[in-house]
Order: sequence, then C-alpha cells, then structure tokens
Amino acid sequence: MKDAGERGHLISFEGGEGAGKSTQIKYLKAYLETLSLSVTATREPGGGPTGEALRQLVLHPPAPLSAATEALIMFAARRDHLDLVINPARAGGAVVLTDRFYDSTEAYQVAAGDFAADRFKSLLHAVVLKDENPSLTIILDLDVEVGLKRAADRGTMDAFESRGRAFHDAVRRGFLAIAAREPERCVVVDADREPGAVAVDIRTIVAARLGIGGGT
Amino acid sequence: MKDAGERGHLISFEGGEGAGKSTQIKYLKAYLETLSLSVTATREPGGGPTGEALRQLVLHPPAPLSAATEALIMFAARRDHLDLVINPARAGGAVVLTDRFYDSTEAYQVAAGDFAADRFKSLLHAVVLKDENPSLTIILDLDVEVGLKRAADRGTMDAFESRGRAFHDAVRRGFLAIAAREPERCVVVDADREPGAVAVDIRTIVAARLGIGGGT
Repeated sequence: MKDAGERGHLISFEGGEGAGKSTQIKYLKAYLETLSLSVTATREPGGGPTGEALRQLVLHPPAPLSAATEALIMFAARRDHLDLVINPARAGGAVVLTDRFYDSTEAYQVAAGDFAADRFKSLLHAVVLKDENPSLTIILDLDVEVGLKRAADRGTMDAFESRGRAFHDAVRRGFLAIAAREPERCVVVDADREPGAVAVDIRTIVAARLGIGGGT
Repeated sequence: MKDAGERGHLISFEGGEGAGKSTQIKYLKAYLETLSLSVTATREPGGGPTGEALRQLVLHPPAPLSAATEALIMFAARRDHLDLVINPARAGGAVVLTDRFYDSTEAYQVAAGDFAADRFKSLLHAVVLKDENPSLTIILDLDVEVGLKRAADRGTMDAFESRGRAFHDAVRRGFLAIAAREPERCVVVDADREPGAVAVDIRTIVAARLGIGGGT
C-alpha cells in the first residue's frame, strides 16, 4: 500500500463546536488501521507537555486575551505539536489525523475575532513550512445551534464554547470561506447526519484525494 | 516638558545576561521622575498574568523547546505585554522603560538559535504594529565571561543563562548586528564600567535622541 520510509500524510479535521471531529477521527483511524496503515491521532492545541500547558492557558486564561495573543499562543503550541508529534510520526510513515490545525486559528481569531488577515498570513509563514501543510482538510459543517447544544451536553464550556451565537456563526462562515478559497486542500462535509454516514463520506474523500483505501 | 495627552515614549533596554539592564532602568526611572515625568518600568517576557505564565513556561520549560517555539511564546507574551502594560501606559503619556523587547528574540532565537531570519521578520510583522516600535533602544554591551559571572552570582540560572559560552557570544554578536543595521533606533553602550558612569551615558543619549532631560 505504501513504501516503507515514505513520508505519511497529514489530514486535518476542522469545524465548529460539536461538529463531531473527534468521533470522525476515531472512525477513520480504526478504518485505516484495518488497511494495516500506521495512524497517529492527535489534537490541537496540544502536543508535548509545553503544548498542553499552552492549551490550558488559552482555553482557561487567567485574564481575557486579545485575538492576537490567542493566535500566537495557538501557533506556539502548533510549532511544538509539529516538532514533537506530527513530523516524527509522518517521518515514520504514519498517517496523522489532527483534531484542528491552522484553519481553526483563521476561523476563530480572524473570521470571528479581530486578528487581521494579513497578520495571520505573516504568522502562518513564520511558523508552518511548506511541506508541513496538510495533504487534506476535512471541514465538518454543522448548524451552529445544533453544535453548541452538543458541546453543552458534554459539560463545562471552555473560553471558546462559551462565546455567543454571533461568534460561532462567524467561525462557521470562516471555515466555509477557507474551503471555497482552497478547494484542492479542503472538502466540506455535512456533519448534521448520523456519524456512520459522515464516516462513509470521509472514507470516500480520503480514497479519492489521497488514494488510500477503497472508498465505502 | 510634555503636553498632557501626548503619547509617551517606549525605550527598550537590551543586552546579554548580567549586562545591568534592570539596574540601569532603575537609575533612568529615578532620574526621569525628578523631571516630573510619569515613568513605567516593565520587563519581558511578562505583562499580565498570561504573560507571566508564558514567562515561566519559556524560562523553565517542561521539555526542551525549539528556537521557533521559544520565539512564538516570547511574541505571545509580548503581545499581551503591549495590550495590558505598554500601550495603556504610553496612551496616558508615560515614558515606558522595558527590560528586553523584540531584539532579544532576534539575538537569542535567530542569531544564537536556528529560527530563520525571514521567519522572524514575518513574526515581527504579524505581532508588532508600526507605532508600537521603541523610540529608542539602549544595547548594553559586555564581555560574555563578565556577564555570565554576574548572572551566576545572582543565583539559580534559567533556560537561557545556563547555555554555553558559544551561545552567548552569538547573542552578543546578534545585538551588535541589530545596532549596526538600525542606528536611528539603537545605541550601544559599554556596560563594563561603574553603573553610575553607564547611567550618565544613558541620560545623555536619552536627552540627545528624545529631547527628554538635560544630559548629565
């Protein structure tokens, strides 16, 4: 299926609160493992112990943060995540599935926050090298009310989940705008369906885009 | 001396370990206050509670950090520092004296680390707005052995102080290269002298460059 030593793919899962990213990553990981592929599932913000400390800081900040500071902490965690988790796994030939990547920063801090688009672009250039970009980005799209209800049912809300409806509408529009701008990388999937049906769609997309697996 | 409501100056103090930045900031603050100026002394990495948390993380990381991650955490703390401390003080007309600013990131993570110069430039553009640049940067230059000895005498060393001689030589060269590149903003001061003599030089420079105070 894949030459030993070949650099593995990075697939990012994006979307608003409650879109089902972690569930879909679980499904896809299990499926790819039935094909004898090595798969690493991870999430942002996170990574090593530094990334986890940054995650706690941005999700539960001791004082309100500006969108610019949020974006910088996210990218610091992302750099740590690339160095300690994503790049080593890809170098070993694994397919890496990440729950959020840089599109989340663009959606939350630029589209829904006041971090300027050109400053985001500079930051992206400063942090992520060309060959560190995802091979494929799955954007799970969902009505905001439905997503927030799902997130609330999970328990305590973090600094992002607890923001209002208008914020989350802007996040959703942000993700859709990214997908429209970068159709070679991004695919939008309707997430307001049975998780199993969504999973089948995602397998088909992974097969068509990356040539991994045989569709449904 | 200064119209009420005028935006105050930002003066950054830069230099390697043990160069005497905090001592000189204390002297200059006391002097400027005798001129009835409002003065805010601050330091990086730091700022609000988030900046302090980031400071702890980068000075005492739970796992080794790449130069890129260090630079990003520093700039996240810097953004917080600008939002919560520097900009409000300048808006109130205060002269702000900061112990380190972005030149430290260039010296430690680019000149002495492996963070690429063009990525540093992108990061700087993403974070610091034009009118947030220092009016004046004082670079305290000192032989590395002398500086490290002074730092060691202060007690426990942090993640930077504990690096070797070659690292600190590169930091010193980095600061001197910045000063050579940006002579309108930067002045190099010989820090291997009595603190009182260094302080007199700094007062003269502040008077000549910013028109504040009357020299010695």
